[in-house]
Amino acid sequence: MLEGIDLQVQRMLRRVNRQTLRHLDGSYQVATKSSYSDLVTTIDRQNEQEIDRQLRVIDPGCRILSEEGFGDRRVDDLDGHVWIVDPLDGTLNFVKQHDHFGIMLALYVDGRPTLAYIMDAVNQDLYHGGNGGGVFKNDCRLTRPADVGLHDSLVAISSSLVLDDVAHLTRVARQASGLRMYGSAAMEMIGVLTGELGAYVSRLKPWDLAPGRVLAEELGLSVKSIDDDGISVLSSNLVLVATKRAGQDILDRTD
Amino acid sequence: MLEGIDLQVQRMLRRVNRQTLRHLDGSYQVATKSSYSDLVTTIDRQNEQEIDRQLRVIDPGCRILSEEGFGDRRVDDLDGHVWIVDPLDGTLNFVKQHDHFGIMLALYVDGRPTLAYIMDAVNQDLYHGGNGGGVFKNDCRLTRPADVGLHDSLVAISSSLVLDDVAHLTRVARQASGLRMYGSAAMEMIGVLTGELGAYVSRLKPWDLAPGRVLAEELGLSVKSIDDDGISVLSSNLVLVATKRAGQDILDRTD
Repeated sequence: MLEGIDLQVQRMLRRVNRQTLRHLDGSYQVATKSSYSDLVTTIDRQNEQEIDRQLRVIDPGCRILSEEGFGDRRVDDLDGHVWIVDPLDGTLNFVKQHDHFGIMLALYVDGRPTLAYIMDAVNQDLYHGGNGGGVFKNDCRLTRPADVGLHDSLVAISSSLVLDDVAHLTRVARQASGLRMYGSAAMEMIGVLTGELGAYVSRLKPWDLAPGRVLAEELGLSVKSIDDDGISVLSSNLVLVATKRAGQDILDRTD
Repeated sequence: MLEGIDLQVQRMLRRVNRQTLRHLDGSYQVATKSSYSDLVTTIDRQNEQEIDRQLRVIDPGCRILSEEGFGDRRVDDLDGHVWIVDPLDGTLNFVKQHDHFGIMLALYVDGRPTLAYIMDAVNQDLYHGGNGGGVFKNDCRLTRPADVGLHDSLVAISSSLVLDDVAHLTRVARQASGLRMYGSAAMEMIGVLTGELGAYVSRLKPWDLAPGRVLAEELGLSVKSIDDDGISVLSSNLVLVATKRAGQDILDRTD
């Protein structure tokens, strides 16, 4: 059953992505949410409505936790099939750059991370997998990245954590090979999955974290809470996604 | 004469770029320079030797200032034709990511910024122009980016300037729409030229700055010294490359 769901979701995501790219000519409207740099566009909303509608056809009886609120009204447990949906990740990049944004989904089954999808929208590359079957970039299986330490890693840390020096993360940044900021959890998760980044540290909402978490854990990478509260699938978390060694190096420095 | 030089340099750069991409399978060696994150590879050196050799054929009598020292031994004035060469910009990205690096050249004629080239290596996009003829991405003329202010701009600031809060740049970062770090002057210059970034601030050596400066000024963008010493083509500078409005907003905040 999961295999059928998987293939249908991949097709659906590619279709939604093509629709998204057609809107890059500017035929959308932008509104602010919590602040002037927290944007939502009509494309975020259209994508979410479309994805949620299709998921209910592909996986009847599922529940959906999605960013813009078109999913189920309350999802406060992980019983059965729960989809976590980010219909457009990196909205600021989408609006200002027409590049460097993604679409992300994850399926949890009775609390177990099961399937996940991260679409690199402009490059039309779909990273997907889970459930013990490995992780793929389109049709090509990814190998586990080399287990490099912090000193030999490029690391992405979100800007607010660096500017406010949360959890001594400026010390982490100084001890890495280099610091990068792409402005999209999708792009940064892909960086860690492919080994382009040794670590990504950010405060992430469920839809920013769940898909990358499923794929990272499937590849044997570390996904850990930095503030020691453990990771909750249904709330915000200060987390690292990293190689085992870089992850441990970061935890040693953020104590 | 310049037109002939221009076309030959474009062809030469595309050839050198194809050779560079063939080495992405890892057939190169890496050494450190000033620190463990300041790398040079055999590709930097091969590219520079090849570019310098070809420039002497294309533009006989020119002098060459190039990063790895295969150019003229001393270039301390800008008389005649002076080429400034970065044979591989973003070497750390080249080594760790196999992506997000470039090749850059600029021609100054009697001190006048005249022609420049920035190759986005992996995407094989050549940004080039100058001398009043406009700026092109391959064959397509770029329009001047919208004159947005800091508040509406994504800005790239190099990590050391942020981590050490040089010239109050963390204040600049907080007042922008968002902060980005790509780790390559070539990539960040292209961001400003295309309007994906409203500003780029960094401490840059001649080969990091000259090509972007020529193209940015050709598009009517601001290129200014932050530390008020004025810009010297032959030495390191703390500079901004930005829209007029974002540039002024940054200067107002770094006083």
